[in-house]
Parts: sequence; C-alpha cells; structure tokens
Amino acid sequence: MSERRQPVLGILGGGQLARMLALAAAPLGGKTLVVDSSADACAGQVAPLVVADWTDYAALEAFAAQVDVVTFDFENVPAETAHWLAERVAVYPAPQALAVAQDRLAEKTLFRECGLPTPAFMTVDTREQLDQALATVGVPAILKTRRLGYDGKGQFRLTRQADADAAWAALGAQASKHGLILEAFVPFERELSVIAVRGRDGEFRIWPLTRNWHVDGVLSMSLAPAPDIEQLQRRASELARTLAERLDYVGVFALELFVKDGELLGNEMAPRVHNSGHWTIEGAYTSQFENHVRAVLGLPLGDTGARGLSAMLNWIGELPEPTAVLKTSDAHWHDYGKQARPGRKVGHATVCAADAVALAERLDALAAALTRQAQVQPTLDVLHS
Amino acid sequence: MSERRQPVLGILGGGQLARMLALAAAPLGGKTLVVDSSADACAGQVAPLVVADWTDYAALEAFAAQVDVVTFDFENVPAETAHWLAERVAVYPAPQALAVAQDRLAEKTLFRECGLPTPAFMTVDTREQLDQALATVGVPAILKTRRLGYDGKGQFRLTRQADADAAWAALGAQASKHGLILEAFVPFERELSVIAVRGRDGEFRIWPLTRNWHVDGVLSMSLAPAPDIEQLQRRASELARTLAERLDYVGVFALELFVKDGELLGNEMAPRVHNSGHWTIEGAYTSQFENHVRAVLGLPLGDTGARGLSAMLNWIGELPEPTAVLKTSDAHWHDYGKQARPGRKVGHATVCAADAVALAERLDALAAALTRQAQVQPTLDVLHS
Ligand SMILES: Nc1ncnc2c1ncn2[C@@H]1O[C@H](COP(=O)(O)OP(=O)(O)O)[C@@H](O)[C@H]1O
Ligand SMILES: Nc1ncnc2c1ncn2[C@@H]1O[C@H](COP(=O)(O)OP(=O)(O)O)[C@@H](O)[C@H]1O
Ligand SMILES: [Mg+2]
Ligand SMILES: [Mg+2]
Repeated sequence: MSERRQPVLGILGGGQLARMLALAAAPLGGKTLVVDSSADACAGQVAPLVVADWTDYAALEAFAAQVDVVTFDFENVPAETAHWLAERVAVYPAPQALAVAQDRLAEKTLFRECGLPTPAFMTVDTREQLDQALATVGVPAILKTRRLGYDGKGQFRLTRQADADAAWAALGAQASKHGLILEAFVPFERELSVIAVRGRDGEFRIWPLTRNWHVDGVLSMSLAPAPDIEQLQRRASELARTLAERLDYVGVFALELFVKDGELLGNEMAPRVHNSGHWTIEGAYTSQFENHVRAVLGLPLGDTGARGLSAMLNWIGELPEPTAVLKTSDAHWHDYGKQARPGRKVGHATVCAADAVALAERLDALAAALTRQAQVQPTLDVLHS
Repeated sequence: MSERRQPVLGILGGGQLARMLALAAAPLGGKTLVVDSSADACAGQVAPLVVADWTDYAALEAFAAQVDVVTFDFENVPAETAHWLAERVAVYPAPQALAVAQDRLAEKTLFRECGLPTPAFMTVDTREQLDQALATVGVPAILKTRRLGYDGKGQFRLTRQADADAAWAALGAQASKHGLILEAFVPFERELSVIAVRGRDGEFRIWPLTRNWHVDGVLSMSLAPAPDIEQLQRRASELARTLAERLDYVGVFALELFVKDGELLGNEMAPRVHNSGHWTIEGAYTSQFENHVRAVLGLPLGDTGARGLSAMLNWIGELPEPTAVLKTSDAHWHDYGKQARPGRKVGHATVCAADAVALAERLDALAAALTRQAQVQPTLDVLHS
C-alpha cells in the first residue's frame, strides 16, 4: 500500500469559525493549518497555527507551500493577500468573490442585478454627500462603513437630519479610506438568513432559512428552520443560487435578509460560514462547517436538511455557567476557548427538539436557569404563536 | 474580568479514540494533550502530542504538570505508569479499575461476583494445565492471553483436543509472562455491548444496547439501539451500574456480552470509549466521547438517548472510496488520519435513519456502491426481520 497524503486545508484567520472548520475537517481526513496574527487565536487549540500578519509574505509563502487549499475564517483579509495566495495555491472562495462581499456597495449592487431589492442607499464620501444622501434616503437611516464592519461595528443610526454631525464625527474619518454608505433603516417584520453552499463542480445546496434576532447589531439568537416562511424558501434559494453562480462561488456563504411587507430585501452577504448557521452542527444532517470543507476540498456536498427544530443562543462578552445547558436534553455547549471581553463572541449553545412545543419548553426552562429571559423571549414568542 | 484557564485533558495513547476524545473536548472548552510513543499518532493531528514511552518518567513528569486530568485511549498502559501518574494528578478511570479490566481473569471474576455469568473458563499457566482445562471446559474453546489482547489478537481457537499443541505453539510463550485463560466457545445467538458512563459524583447513564458483529475477532458492524432486546436493556443497565460502583469507576466503559438462550454472558470489559459506541457521535444526543470528557472533567453528564437507528461500519486495513458515503443522507464519514495497514482500524462510517425500513434502504444502496454486501448482510437480515 502506498503512503497516503491527507489534504491540508489552510485557513486565513484563527477565530471560532476556523476552530469549528478544523473540527469538521478532521473526520473527513483533512488536516488544517491556520494563520493568524495573534499567538492565542482560539483555532490554534485544535490545529497548528502560523503566527503572521497578512503582509508577512515570507510566512505566507511557507504557508502556501504546506496547504492544498486556502479558505477564510475572516472575510476582511486584504485583497492583495488573497490575490497573491491565489497565484500560488487554490483559494476558495476566489479573491474576486471575496472582493464583492467585502464592499457593501458592490454587494448591494450585485443583489439588485440579481433581482433582490435592497434598502434605499447612497454612497457617502464627504460631509456634503451625507446631507444629500439624507435628503434622498430620509430618516431613520444607518450610516455604515463600506468595508471592515462586523457585529454592528462601523455603524451609526440617525433618527433625525440633525444627527448628521454626530454620525460624521463617528465615521467621517473612515470616509476617505474605506468609503461610507447611508442606508434607509428598514422597519422589518423579520430578519432571515440563507446559508448556502456551492461545490467546485457547481453543485448547489441550501439549508432551511434561519430566523435571526440581533441586539445592538450583534446576532443574539437564531431559530431554524424559520417558521412560516412559505414561498420565501424557494425565492431565497433561487436568489442564492443566482448570486453564487454569478460569482462562481465555492464554499459556504450567508445572505442576510430583511422581510418587509412579506418581501425579501438584501442586507449583506458573508463569504464564509456564518454565525446564523451554527445550529447546523447538531440541527442539520450536514453542518455548514462540514459542507464548507467538502466544497473547498472538491468532495460531494452533504444533505442540508434539518433534523427537527433548533435554537441557537449566542454568548457575548462572557460565558454563562454551563451546567443548565449541559443538563438539558439535546442541548449543545460550544465554548470557543477565548478570553472574556465585552462584546466578544465567546461561545454559543444550540437547543434542539422534535417540535415547537418541546423546543419552547426547553428554552423556557433554560432561560429561567440562566436568567436570560430577555434574550430568549422573541424566539419563545414565535414558538408559542 | 480575570484571565480564565481552560481545563487540560491528558490522554495516554494517541490513536483514533484519543483523536475523537479531543474533538469532543474542544466544544466543552477543554484543551487536550496526548502522549504516544509514535510521532505520527493520529490524535496528534488535532491536539498537541508528547512523544514518549510509558517508562519515560521525565516526559511523564512534564506531561502531568501540564494537565488537570489524565485518561486513556489505550487500556494497556502499564499499571506502574498509571499509579505513578495518579500520585501526581487525577487519573480517571483510577488505576485500580484499569487493572481489573486489563486482566481477563480479574474481569470475569468480577462479572461473576456481580451476578453476570461468563462462559466456562480456567486459567492456564503451563502445557499440563492446558490439557486439564480442555478436559474441564471441553471443545470448542478459545485460548486467550490474559493481558494485552485486542481485536482478536492473542487468541487461538480449538475445535478438538488435538489442537492443544498448535494452541500452545501459538501462545505458550506468553503463559509465564501474561498468563493464559481457556474459555468455552459460546455458540451465541447475538453479541451485544453496553456503553455506560459514570461521573465523578456517581451519576450513572447508559446508552441503548448495541448489537455487534465481529469478523475474525474484529468488530465489523454495529446496530443501535439493538432491536428486540426487551428486558435485556434493564438487566444490562443494572449489571453495568453494579460493576461501575464496585470499581468506583469514572468515565465511559463498555461491557461486551453474548446472548445465549436469551440470557446474558459477560465476555469482557473495556475501560474506555469503545468501537461499538462510535454510533453515538451522530446517533445519540450525547456521544460517548463527549460524556467521557464530561465525566473526567467533573461536568454533568448528557442525555444518552438515541435519535433514531444507527448502523456503524468499520473500515479495516484501508478506507473505501468515500463518495458513496458522503452522498448518502445522514451518513457520516470518519477518517482517522492513519496510514493503511492490514488489520488496522483506519476509519468508520455511521448511517442513521428514523426507522428500520429507511436504514435498510440506505445500507443496501451503500453496500452495493461499495461492493461490501458481505459486511452489511447480517445487519440487513436483522433490519428486514
Ligand atoms: N438598513 C437597516 N435597517 C434595519 N436594520 C438594520 C439595517 N442595517 C442593519 N440593521 C440591523 O443591524 C444588524 C447588523 O447590521 P449589518 O449591516 O448586517 O452589519 P454587520 O456586518 O455588522 O453584520 C442587522 O442584522 C440588522 O439587525
Ligand atoms: N468464548 C467465546 N465464545 C464465542 N466467541 C468468542 C469468545 N471469545 C471471543 N469470541 C469472539 O471473538 C471476539 C473478540 O474476542 P474478545 O475476547 O472480545 O477479545 P478482544 O479483546 O480482541 O476484543 C468476540 O467479540 C467474539 O465475537
Ligand atoms: Mg450582518
Ligand atoms: Mg472484545
């Protein structure tokens, strides 16, 4: 028997997404190598870690020589780094697809081209343009950096025209460097996300839509499959496929959507596995992490069906005491191995059940034990309705 | 917020069991450190690895200083090593419990003390004793080394008195060192295993019984929950609990059982996670790996209920081509990251389904695609009956 060589997956960024990708790669026989600028990046606990900056080309050269495929835990890897690597090794998603998702203007433009409406928006590069945009878009509105925003960072909400000065004070400095965009604030009925995956051969799959709740711009809870979505699942699936094909996308991506008057509006696209897809680890036949690894390694994609109902609770800032979760039937604890820090995503829990009644019971008991009723209430309201 | 310290799990032995333990420890926030004498031990792909022998006390000293708890991937760690470590750090299961499971005589004696009958047996230390034992136990019989046997190794089957010379030629050299035992060969109706877990606080849980098929002494397939077990589940549970309490056992262990005339007979005990429990990764609410980590870290145990029906196929020697498994709904591929070698366990697949009809359909199609009908047939016969 000849010596076998296992495929090596290189991941740019060593956070919890890389950590969960590495855990999913192992049963598939994949080895993982992670690059992060921080020596205590949490993915380094489960895979070898190269400590290097995105501009450390000597380190990246050595990294590229050790891996078969490169992918991303972090979508804001500089375009130059992604292109430079793509000249040396297969990079999925390709730098061109990454570039679109890195820029709120490019992604909203693409959404519209694919037939997905977006909130009204205008680009803002100067203080004067902010006034013009406010006149056109109206209030309430949100000023956002075009690039590098995440978890609600790089955003300022305006409720009156007079908030323009405060908004400019907060974000104006980034106008020349990254560009800004002013969006109409959408009084949406619901937030949904699509998690989808496309293989190297074009095979396309989508998980059931997820319903999401954000607090201060950060994901707080998810429920999947999203209840009462009727024909939205089909429409979302068609849009996601069109987008993926336009970008010749390979791997998992997320589309964040608002539902307004029963119609879908495109908010943003994440060119990677996504927080609102964490429920798929236990709640779907194949997780987003496993299917991303399968896609980038060129393996067939797995079944994206859901096993039952799942609710995911994010742990932001610090972990709660784990006992109540560990004692709940079909509840699953995920500690990312990070230090506590205000606003930081440090873990999550997924609670699964066969139906809404059983899930509501489990969530109710858990929320009481954790004194987290506020976090869970919106999901309970939906489950009880 | 104060700096948090994650618990570190030390594992003696770096094979697939350590690998799957490390993958289960990560979401619980546990770090893993593995010791193995081989630098390419497959657990080293997912956790840091110390390359050292069981008698390298300098390396073990450094290892003990870095971990909070020590456990085993390999039950045949020398008793001296286990005791030496237990003087320095918490070791679960405790060396005394390990010692019983390392010796077929001690474990069978314990089984009988706990009310679990065993096949007729006699110890054999000399050629003369082999003749005496054969006269008492009769044929067919199996001569086994008391210690260090696994996967059917260290065994010789005798069908006639005249096989004694051949048996002695094969195993006699080990009589003085490890001792031998002659067992009556049991024409069993079924082989079952119990996978059970006991926490540091005495909490006890058992998964549904698993039905197993061995080929040449090596596990070939498992089906869980074992169909038609009626009152055997309760009896097995009581026995497992009694045994665990007698040994003050902490962690997961397996009991291998024969069913003869509808009654249970004890074959052996494995003081660790067990191949016949691999189905619990996808087929149970909490896997044997997760519950072992929970037990040894002192966390509450998780629900050991089954999600549906699961069948596990072992890959011995080399991996089949993965495509057929990857394409099957709710089938799960496990590549241990090892080099192919005759007789070596290099991976497994678990196929899950809601009921026997669906599982049989999936297994049937899979067996055809892999041309492994022979491996799957005994399980299919049960599912169709
Ligand atoms: N135009 C908008 N109208 C209403 N709510 C919005 C709008 N833009 C963002 N939000 C809210 O803020 C959250 C985070 O904003 P988003 O643009 O997705 O940025 P991030 O990149 O930080 O996820 C959204 O999920 C939504 O809850
Ligand atoms: N006394 C016996 N009667 C019938 N079959 C046996 C007996 N002992 C072992 N076997 C068969 O061989 C397999 C492996 O033997 P076992 O004693 O469990 O050794 P190992 O430590 O290698 O697992 C068993 O699972 C069973 O199928
Ligand atoms: Mg967003
Ligand atoms: Mg055995």
